[in-house]
Amino acid sequence: MWRNMDECPVFEDLQAARIPDLKEGMDGDGAEYRIQRYSIPMPAGLHYNYAAKRVDDTVLTILDLLAAEQEVTLKYEMLLSGEEINTGENRKVLHHLTRGQLGDDVIYNGKNMRTFYLEQLEKVREFSEAVRNGSLTAPGGKPFTDVVQIGIGGSDLGPRALYLALKAWGERNNKLKLRAHFISNVDPDDAAAVLSALDLSATLFILVSKSGTTQETLTNERFVGQFLQDAGLNPAKQMVAVTSETSPLANNPAYLASFYMDDFIGGRYSSTSVCGAAVLSLAFGADTFEELLAGAAAADKQALDPCNKRNPALMDALIGVYERNILGYASTAILPYSQALSRFPAHLQQLDMESNGKSVNRFGKPISYKTGPVIFGEPGTNGQHSFYQLLHQGTDIIPLQFIAFAESQYGKDITVEGSTSQQKLLANVIAQITAFACGKQDENPNKSFAGGRPSSLIYGKALTPEALGALLAHYENKVMFQGFLWNVNSFDQEGVQLGKVLAKKVLSHTMPPELAAYAQLFGL
Amino acid sequence: MWRNMDECPVFEDLQAARIPDLKEGMDGDGAEYRIQRYSIPMPAGLHYNYAAKRVDDTVLTILDLLAAEQEVTLKYEMLLSGEEINTGENRKVLHHLTRGQLGDDVIYNGKNMRTFYLEQLEKVREFSEAVRNGSLTAPGGKPFTDVVQIGIGGSDLGPRALYLALKAWGERNNKLKLRAHFISNVDPDDAAAVLSALDLSATLFILVSKSGTTQETLTNERFVGQFLQDAGLNPAKQMVAVTSETSPLANNPAYLASFYMDDFIGGRYSSTSVCGAAVLSLAFGADTFEELLAGAAAADKQALDPCNKRNPALMDALIGVYERNILGYASTAILPYSQALSRFPAHLQQLDMESNGKSVNRFGKPISYKTGPVIFGEPGTNGQHSFYQLLHQGTDIIPLQFIAFAESQYGKDITVEGSTSQQKLLANVIAQITAFACGKQDENPNKSFAGGRPSSLIYGKALTPEALGALLAHYENKVMFQGFLWNVNSFDQEGVQLGKVLAKKVLSHTMPPELAAYAQLFGL
Repeated sequence: MWRNMDECPVFEDLQAARIPDLKEGMDGDGAEYRIQRYSIPMPAGLHYNYAAKRVDDTVLTILDLLAAEQEVTLKYEMLLSGEEINTGENRKVLHHLTRGQLGDDVIYNGKNMRTFYLEQLEKVREFSEAVRNGSLTAPGGKPFTDVVQIGIGGSDLGPRALYLALKAWGERNNKLKLRAHFISNVDPDDAAAVLSALDLSATLFILVSKSGTTQETLTNERFVGQFLQDAGLNPAKQMVAVTSETSPLANNPAYLASFYMDDFIGGRYSSTSVCGAAVLSLAFGADTFEELLAGAAAADKQALDPCNKRNPALMDALIGVYERNILGYASTAILPYSQALSRFPAHLQQLDMESNGKSVNRFGKPISYKTGPVIFGEPGTNGQHSFYQLLHQGTDIIPLQFIAFAESQYGKDITVEGSTSQQKLLANVIAQITAFACGKQDENPNKSFAGGRPSSLIYGKALTPEALGALLAHYENKVMFQGFLWNVNSFDQEGVQLGKVLAKKVLSHTMPPELAAYAQLFGL
Repeated sequence: MWRNMDECPVFEDLQAARIPDLKEGMDGDGAEYRIQRYSIPMPAGLHYNYAAKRVDDTVLTILDLLAAEQEVTLKYEMLLSGEEINTGENRKVLHHLTRGQLGDDVIYNGKNMRTFYLEQLEKVREFSEAVRNGSLTAPGGKPFTDVVQIGIGGSDLGPRALYLALKAWGERNNKLKLRAHFISNVDPDDAAAVLSALDLSATLFILVSKSGTTQETLTNERFVGQFLQDAGLNPAKQMVAVTSETSPLANNPAYLASFYMDDFIGGRYSSTSVCGAAVLSLAFGADTFEELLAGAAAADKQALDPCNKRNPALMDALIGVYERNILGYASTAILPYSQALSRFPAHLQQLDMESNGKSVNRFGKPISYKTGPVIFGEPGTNGQHSFYQLLHQGTDIIPLQFIAFAESQYGKDITVEGSTSQQKLLANVIAQITAFACGKQDENPNKSFAGGRPSSLIYGKALTPEALGALLAHYENKVMFQGFLWNVNSFDQEGVQLGKVLAKKVLSHTMPPELAAYAQLFGL
């Protein structure tokens, strides 16, 4: 059942199918029908709309067959039931279990894994409630006002993006109790900047490293510890650990409390585990985090549907494969028209590029087609005044993914020239979709827009915790389905190892000559 | 003299030249020689090192001939002397004049433009000194502690990136007096978040719109004005304008002071004009801003050298063209190993993609080769734990541009396991360069690295204001040279217009059916 995409009989049909003309599809009256029809409801009132993608019914049907031939929902069910889908590392892939159970009980070493994740989540709830209600205070007796997460990559990008996404919502709904901050980079300026702006005697720290060996994170722990000691404070009284039970950080008196994850939760998929639960529950309360989990669980459930027209994650995945392997587009932009999602593209950049930026299949054999694209993005309308020029008139076509919500987060707005800022924001996102799709001829070629540039739109009423959870899981499942289609292992990241090994050689002064020559430039 | 790149006789030689093997070049002992030789000194102690780029002496010689045939430094001289290089809009391109004079006097409507820019800069100096020394206070008598720039695109990304770049330096050197903040997005959550965190009675606002008609910026001005009035404050007493003399914002009693730029300063090139001068002089002092200008001016001067081996901006441009048009790479990552440069990639994304994301040449004729690539990036080491997997093992090769400094900004550091954080940071950047270039074979193909992935390195002792100015001008000039090579107009942005027009149609309810169908989704 595991085979390369180009070994599927239907892949030839996909290559042979007429490539649709997007401008034709989106021109005038036909567009309305298309916008209504090419739309899939998602949980929490969201919709995935792909009317402005360069597909038609024929292509969609072939894509559906491709999904069937690659048995992608069956593979998803196997994953849910605990098969070792991460073959290279002989590991299960269980992040879905952190927010629900859709498959069989997953037992590992006699332990029910769903129960384990729930127990850890319950520990987070108790701890965060004690901090939030003031029964657990900082050593000097102050209530904790701030929380700093020390982690990098998956221990940073997802939780940071989610915190920023809910910050305004939390303020508006009186949920935000601890302000969150993040230290990730080994550049000492990162930690110094964060720490210099805080009252350390009222700040709680969360150290996040699954392995307990991440160089950046352990270095930053020491950096923070030194700052605290210099301020007469004891790190052990105001730092908790998020790690695996087998790591050197586990059961360690250096931490006030410890919350556990395990090797079956990949870093970039860990936002719904205790890695995200701790900081988000401290900031917004455990109930808010449970709402986020409920949104994610509902999206996971919907992703079981084998029909692409009812499964937005699968549809998104299939269209992405079509764009990458048939249309030959090399990158994809994520464009949230929501300031709250300002760092969501950075999270998706890791999620997607680290999962599917692979050149061998899951058996280690080279593959002869393109896999994961470059992912980048900034919030709109900012991007319109930046890189959209190239998106509209550049020599390459870049597929786009817009995200927008009818309501703002703060709900503070102003009417200028007959419209609110929120209305202007929304007017811009839909204007962009049609501008990209339809273009516009002008007698001055410099002012002409070729059009035919595809985009999708995920939209909803408001970015609630539940909607955010659904959005997060949508992209996780999209990436998973693309990995199944391409037959790559989306859950390892061997490509990050070589750099780590060489950096250690530099620091231990056991360098090959090319490294030594570079080290000289910096006097290392 | 203006012709497409593929009309240059030497372009055929470039296409015919043997493509160098980067692994060969960077393998072992030969690398040391290459690292020493493929390096160009820049102002402020910086160096541009291209040893790990996929070029050799033959290719570099042909590229030098290509630059000569396209007369790129002559075109640069014409630009400096006030020719209308922005042909589509019949405009001069004068941002270099904001930091020095390298060509003839530029006279426009009887006005010496260098003198004009200097006068405006002097006005900024006087104003910022009055604010910083407390002789000009907020209406209630408080000294101003914070400054908020309201602007979008070029009025936001460059100044914001430069402010963040110097923030730690400013704190360490007791230069930071006013903390800066930025409001750009029309999403009302952007302004609401910034304003809710400030003491409005001690905050100065800078409204930046060259035309005085930017929808987002004017809307946000009103948003801010409403907040101030609700707090019993008078916007006219704490807001200044940066605009052109012909704009509705000029000479307007609604502002405490006005500083002028003009149509010859493109938004994305405006960081060294009053657009950047105001906020940076208020934050760090006018002397600091002058140091930045001095660094930029020195880089501009070096860019006059017609020989690519002495002209880092030209070399960078030529190698970029080689990567785009001969090697066929579609995107480029900017990877500063410096937390201070966290938003510098976002600025370069605009600078590059808005300038050279064009499909017609400067005469409006279609061109038959690729122009500007996708630009993206995040600071290292963060990126290593995110998208580097794809950079190392993905199916596309992405050229990389590393930036690093021997010293950190705060100078606060800690030694863990025998090395400081700063040393770890630097060890990582050079480890990555060699890992990308040389790769590593492994019997497990999943752990193999093909190598041959090119990168450059700009490095120096420290990110001072002068170094930052040189870095900024380096990229501006690189982009300009690429525009000359490709024969596109790098100074207009017609591609942003259509979206604006359509957004207005939505807001005025005069929509074509495809837009109306989208508008319905949001109840617009």
